Amino acid sequence: MSKKKTGIIGATGYTGSELVRILTNHPDVEITVITSESRTGELLSDVHPFLQGIADQKLISINRICNYDLDLVFLALPHGISMDFVKRFKDSPFRIIDLSGDFRLSSSEVYEEWYNMEHIYPEGIEKSVFGCPELFYNEIKGAGLIANPGCFPISSILGLAPLLSKNIVDSAPVIVDSKTGVTGAGITAKAVNLYSNVNDNFRAYGLKRHRHTIEMQEILDRVSGKKTLIQFTPHLLPVDRGILTTIYARPANRIKEDFLKETYKEFYSNAPFVRLRKQAPAIKDVRGTNFCDLFATYDERTGMVIVISVIDNLIKGAAGMAVQNMNIMFGLEETRGLDQVPLNP
Amino acid sequence: MSKKKTGIIGATGYTGSELVRILTNHPDVEITVITSESRTGELLSDVHPFLQGIADQKLISINRICNYDLDLVFLALPHGISMDFVKRFKDSPFRIIDLSGDFRLSSSEVYEEWYNMEHIYPEGIEKSVFGCPELFYNEIKGAGLIANPGCFPISSILGLAPLLSKNIVDSAPVIVDSKTGVTGAGITAKAVNLYSNVNDNFRAYGLKRHRHTIEMQEILDRVSGKKTLIQFTPHLLPVDRGILTTIYARPANRIKEDFLKETYKEFYSNAPFVRLRKQAPAIKDVRGTNFCDLFATYDERTGMVIVISVIDNLIKGAAGMAVQNMNIMFGLEETRGLDQVPLNP
Amino acid sequence: MSKKKTGIIGATGYTGSELVRILTNHPDVEITVITSESRTGELLSDVHPFLQGIADQKLISINRICNYDLDLVFLALPHGISMDFVKRFKDSPFRIIDLSGDFRLSSSEVYEEWYNMEHIYPEGIEKSVFGCPELFYNEIKGAGLIANPGCFPISSILGLAPLLSKNIVDSAPVIVDSKTGVTGAGITAKAVNLYSNVNDNFRAYGLKRHRHTIEMQEILDRVSGKKTLIQFTPHLLPVDRGILTTIYARPANRIKEDFLKETYKEFYSNAPFVRLRKQAPAIKDVRGTNFCDLFATYDERTGMVIVISVIDNLIKGAAGMAVQNMNIMFGLEETRGLDQVPLNP
Amino acid sequence: MSKKKTGIIGATGYTGSELVRILTNHPDVEITVITSESRTGELLSDVHPFLQGIADQKLISINRICNYDLDLVFLALPHGISMDFVKRFKDSPFRIIDLSGDFRLSSSEVYEEWYNMEHIYPEGIEKSVFGCPELFYNEIKGAGLIANPGCFPISSILGLAPLLSKNIVDSAPVIVDSKTGVTGAGITAKAVNLYSNVNDNFRAYGLKRHRHTIEMQEILDRVSGKKTLIQFTPHLLPVDRGILTTIYARPANRIKEDFLKETYKEFYSNAPFVRLRKQAPAIKDVRGTNFCDLFATYDERTGMVIVISVIDNLIKGAAGMAVQNMNIMFGLEETRGLDQVPLNP
Repeated sequence: MSKKKTGIIGATGYTGSELVRILTNHPDVEITVITSESRTGELLSDVHPFLQGIADQKLISINRICNYDLDLVFLALPHGISMDFVKRFKDSPFRIIDLSGDFRLSSSEVYEEWYNMEHIYPEGIEKSVFGCPELFYNEIKGAGLIANPGCFPISSILGLAPLLSKNIVDSAPVIVDSKTGVTGAGITAKAVNLYSNVNDNFRAYGLKRHRHTIEMQEILDRVSGKKTLIQFTPHLLPVDRGILTTIYARPANRIKEDFLKETYKEFYSNAPFVRLRKQAPAIKDVRGTNFCDLFATYDERTGMVIVISVIDNLIKGAAGMAVQNMNIMFGLEETRGLDQVPLNP
Repeated sequence: MSKKKTGIIGATGYTGSELVRILTNHPDVEITVITSESRTGELLSDVHPFLQGIADQKLISINRICNYDLDLVFLALPHGISMDFVKRFKDSPFRIIDLSGDFRLSSSEVYEEWYNMEHIYPEGIEKSVFGCPELFYNEIKGAGLIANPGCFPISSILGLAPLLSKNIVDSAPVIVDSKTGVTGAGITAKAVNLYSNVNDNFRAYGLKRHRHTIEMQEILDRVSGKKTLIQFTPHLLPVDRGILTTIYARPANRIKEDFLKETYKEFYSNAPFVRLRKQAPAIKDVRGTNFCDLFATYDERTGMVIVISVIDNLIKGAAGMAVQNMNIMFGLEETRGLDQVPLNP
Repeated sequence: MSKKKTGIIGATGYTGSELVRILTNHPDVEITVITSESRTGELLSDVHPFLQGIADQKLISINRICNYDLDLVFLALPHGISMDFVKRFKDSPFRIIDLSGDFRLSSSEVYEEWYNMEHIYPEGIEKSVFGCPELFYNEIKGAGLIANPGCFPISSILGLAPLLSKNIVDSAPVIVDSKTGVTGAGITAKAVNLYSNVNDNFRAYGLKRHRHTIEMQEILDRVSGKKTLIQFTPHLLPVDRGILTTIYARPANRIKEDFLKETYKEFYSNAPFVRLRKQAPAIKDVRGTNFCDLFATYDERTGMVIVISVIDNLIKGAAGMAVQNMNIMFGLEETRGLDQVPLNP
Repeated sequence: MSKKKTGIIGATGYTGSELVRILTNHPDVEITVITSESRTGELLSDVHPFLQGIADQKLISINRICNYDLDLVFLALPHGISMDFVKRFKDSPFRIIDLSGDFRLSSSEVYEEWYNMEHIYPEGIEKSVFGCPELFYNEIKGAGLIANPGCFPISSILGLAPLLSKNIVDSAPVIVDSKTGVTGAGITAKAVNLYSNVNDNFRAYGLKRHRHTIEMQEILDRVSGKKTLIQFTPHLLPVDRGILTTIYARPANRIKEDFLKETYKEFYSNAPFVRLRKQAPAIKDVRGTNFCDLFATYDERTGMVIVISVIDNLIKGAAGMAVQNMNIMFGLEETRGLDQVPLNP
């Protein structure tokens, strides 16, 4: 079988370089073209010197992308900008995986409320599929446009879906307390990701109104079939990669630990990237991989369920999930090219 | 006025060296004696080389401590061991500040339930005062035995006390999601504080049954006058010092942001070490100081109160709080010797 | 005695906030005025929130500084800009400590060669004194303009001065291999101090032509009375503060370890901030203090002298050294207000 | 072709788990058996939970290893212990790659001088081959016993070999100033790798007498054909992985930058894992890979050559180099199974 041809739009950020890192060794796919507007004409390894000798191809402008015969394009662009290109490419022959937040929500109204920005391509919202194979495998197979999940949402959605699918949680807000590595803030230097502001430090941010809140709520509502309030608080860890989410939810009635374990086991019986762990996992346990490690437990004393969920935000929370979606779209084994072993330590 | 004479029992750990760091520059106090059993006869600066030229005094055995004329003794020993010495010193002329967990709970029964260990000196529990000046200033003045608060408890007690004092929170468990620096695990090398297990990593631990849970509950029950369930989850940060606690509680009825702000302002109007912050604080904002920085806010969308609390676990969570208690016991200004400016960055 | 009045020009950087951190608790000095052009009218604690409640004074424009009656002004400005103000203030009644590199070299020609920039105030060079009390105590006392040393230079000058004063080193270049924390690169966010470029990483930079090379050479030539070539290579550590410099020099003839130890001891017999250590020191041993810790040893096998020197780059390498110079200029005890104990861990 | 069968002796350390990480995805090799004495009978993923679902095989005792039909065995044991097993296995049918320091030096006398320990198997020294394919490719092919290089030595040997092969360096000691990540100190918790002793810290250690000095000297003497003195100083970085070595050597006569670049290019024309970089490399550029990145430059001002060399100490400095040697021994492509892309950030 000849290799599938892919393009990566936006190569200078972390998501772009991570796609290159994964696809370089993918047995069934080639990176046909990589674009960058700010570094057009340079080599990818000029932008990311660690790729010298591995991926030295020349960066082209996105305007030249239609000259190439591509099967699929990854958009690794900021939200707000991404929808422009999705719209522009709507009649292109290639399929699209969009890694921004532009097509993840249910309507342009919801988007505008949480992103404070007009949505210029509502039709895209309608035809897009939320790229979470653990929930929507079948829809992904035939999709032309995938909205790849946000990093915080995927960590909490995978942590909560089995529990909420049972429809036993009471009506109080579910607490989603997330802690993320710095790469979540992007590669552009600013105060928030300045070394001395992050090192030996820790802070909460985006209290009450972080955009990922609504993404979690909407997807989980589809799982549970009812409305759930999520109280989401992200925090910034002094680490490069990784998200650990601690979730607190209360069943309306008492449950058993065994029931909880069984619920998760059954729900993820066909999910090759979800590992149900014996103890609470750490973020380095999944670093460099597409795994989501979960640990759920019930506290008899308080009647609460606690779930710990960890992912590598650049992989399961971005580029790896995109490749998993791509594999499904191409009819490949879901795990193809995603057999990385965690880099630990 | 001649300087007060103090002794530090247990100089090899972080709490001991931190007491030295603070008391060395205290204008009204001298460190008369420092003990260590494992390093008896050596200089303190052999154990902690960074103290060379600053605190070179010789370490003696605790058995020789009664040869000295002391006003007050700090016990910086592990729980379980500390109560032995408190009992042994019960008729000594010096007052005691115990930094372990041995005298913080309400009874030997509760202690035995949460510490899985018999308590050998229940009389000490009865006469001890919980050393939180923000709540029990008057009791501390005349105390002979202070139970210095635990690091996690003080961060959550100070964060919750104003809210719970209003008695408006509903009956669901209050969520206390804490993140601590590694020094909380002590100075003895073990897997949990090995560099490569902590660096670029993050994990939860002690789910459901951490001992500090009951300390929080008991003290907060005294504040609110009723029983509150605390769901406490500690996590390990890749930083040396600092605790950030994120607290979620739900008032039974809707409240106003202004009311919340005013409640905290009033409650801490006489607390020189509590800083009410305009934004969510970061742990480096208090590093090296006795401050507890707080930020409380109300989420109209969900009806939840969120409180962020940060301290330096070795100072407000241990040695600094002990010095603050000592100042009060000696009739000194509460802030004496505690004017350190945060080391940031 | 009434307190001396000082001004800090440039409060938004690390050096500015570090001066505030030290002077806030200085018993004989007050901070009368702090300037910032980019944040004029705001509070200092708006710029540095960790100073809330400690230093909330309003920032003024430098243009208003002559309205104040000041004894001394600290210039915490970038090189190139600093000389403008030194020139402008040349007839002002206050004395100046300039923390930039503008007045450290021997002539405007040398400056222009290494800084690639014209020097607009060569008279300043002539009358300035290099602010290293360990070498030039007497000149500092009466100086009107102090050129406060660079961070790398002071770490290597203090490490080499005793050895070079003996005039026994051969003619090969002396190797100065330095490793610095990130704060040396300043507070402005850029790729070089972006968290993910620094964390878990390490690199050399400025090979062969770093500006601090000539500063070291010129000062050390004054010590030895002859020309020494310095091969200086800085490296960037994943830490906030601290410089460790490893120095390699070869005596023309064999020497004895005892002679080396004695040479250092004698040279620094009156230097309260130089600690001669029994073992190789670590940067955290001096964090938050004005100490320079040194360890010098001779390798019988190779005939080389190795010197390890550590400082806190923001203190002994900037703000602390400036305060030490100020103390001497004011006729105060050299150590006044500089009794901080290392923050370790 | 059926897969080659390998055994890993000593699975609990970093080198053992790193071998598993690489060999798990090696197309031509299987891990037939893994041993551990301290954890016999447990699963590898009990020891290293991040390997859950990837490598869950049961750990056996080394005493049972001869029950297996193996082509090659990796010894990932401490020096001193390793030679016992090499001796015991001397008539075994499998070939051996020893990752300890026991067989790297030229004779038992030299070993005893630098390791302060008797060597119990001098015959092993004679028949072993130093496993550096960049220098000894042909000897490795047929070797029965490989002495896999030390981490510091390989970083400096690869950095210096091209220069020393030209025989133009003067007689002064060559300075090798190395900085290593903490995993170099092993997985056993002790003061030196305690988080708070390493984080935000930096120190030199092993001055003058580190064992790796003699390994560098002996191998480089074989390259240059004459005696070279190495002055080696290791330092401990607050990072998990990586070594950066800064090398200073002085040609007896002036050279040209072009000549230097050409010398390196030619020397490594057939070395797939040596990347000659355009700028000074950083350790994260090679993290998780078998690359050694080099940058060599000449300073006209001082007449010195400066070389920067970076490796991942667990890969090119241990497990990756071992697999590269194994590939050559098995007649496979040298790069087989070693196509990892750097994990950056």
